[in-house]
Order: sequence, then structure tokens, then C-alpha cells
Amino acid sequence: MKTKAELEPECPVATTVALIGNKWKLLIMRNLLVRPWRFNELHKNLEGISQKVLTDSLRQMEADGIITRTVYPEVPPRVEYALSELGESMRPILMSMQEWGNRYKAQKKSE
Amino acid sequence: MKTKAELEPECPVATTVALIGNKWKLLIMRNLLVRPWRFNELHKNLEGISQKVLTDSLRQMEADGIITRTVYPEVPPRVEYALSELGESMRPILMSMQEWGNRYKAQKKSE
Repeated sequence: MKTKAELEPECPVATTVALIGNKWKLLIMRNLLVRPWRFNELHKNLEGISQKVLTDSLRQMEADGIITRTVYPEVPPRVEYALSELGESMRPILMSMQEWGNRYKAQKKSE
Repeated sequence: MKTKAELEPECPVATTVALIGNKWKLLIMRNLLVRPWRFNELHKNLEGISQKVLTDSLRQMEADGIITRTVYPEVPPRVEYALSELGESMRPILMSMQEWGNRYKAQKKSE
């Protein structure tokens, strides 16, 4: 959970950075923009993330209202993480990172 | 300095995240998009950053080619950090974070 000062800084970039300004949260957002994911899928896909960091990241993102956690009453119970409407509204940020990364990779290749 | 695998991951979002995927680098970029800054100015502006983390961040960003470090031969020498052309090309990413933050803040205010 963010403190009030962290959630409501003066600068709008800092506001966004407070919610998704780290490597793992950005990569989790990238994945959830495609479809809902289960914990173990994310853990397998995000190479190098520990269970604790993934758990903490997902809990913070849920508390911040950018992802939802849905438990399906199956045996064993299935838990899925998905973007909330607020999280979905961050799509342009991830798209601009994707576009920049594509241009950068194309440039590196042509060097 | 990034390893080859970190600099050239398959996913373009991961490529971008490897270069600026953390709180302080994003906030440094935000500042340098306006004008060149001196070390002490940045240190004063980025509340809570340690000298070591600021130094390390600037060195990595310089090694990654997104910022430049210019020493002006004055007494005492003046050192300024500025965006390189590559760093400047990240402007749309920061702009999308700014836009999202502005919308988020406006929404919070109206609640």
C-alpha cells in the first residue's frame, strides 16, 4: 500500500512511477495486457523473479487497484490475475515502451 | 553495464524496461527531458535518493547511451547531465506516463 504522499505527488509522472515504476510490475503489466494469468504461469514466465517478490508485487498492484485477483472455486482452486479497468487504461504506456523497444532493437540490428 | 541478454531480450517492452525500468531512472529522465541538470540539483530534487544510487543510475544511463555527461572546465568544474539523442527518443514514453498520471489525479480529485 502506498502512503498518501506517494500516491498523490505533485508530478503526474511520479504518480505513475509510484504505481508501476519498477521492472517486475512493468513486465507483469505487459503480460496481463494480453490475457489473465495464473500465479505459477507468471512465476515461470518472469525469469529471475522470486515467489516473494511476485507475491508482493501482485498484492501491491491489487491494493493500488490496477489488477484484480479472482479465485475460481475449483479443486484445486484456480486463482487468476487480470487487469482492472484502471490497469487497462495504462495500455498506452506499455505500448509506447514496446514501440521504443522495437525501434531500438531494429537500430541495433542494422549497426 | 547490461549483459547482452539484458540488452537484447526478445520482448521489446523488456528491452525498454532493462534501460529505464526503475523509479529513479524514470524520474531522472523526466527531469532531463526539460533541460540539462547538475548532479547536486538532481540530488536535491529527487527526494530520498542516496548519492550512491544517483551516481550508479547516472553511470548506467551514460553507459547505456541514453544520457551524456559534460564537464565544463570552470573553477570548480561544472558537470552537467543531459539526454542523448537516444534518450530524447524516449520522450513519448514519459509523455504517456504524464498523461496517465494527470488523468488519474483528476479522477481521484473528483471522487
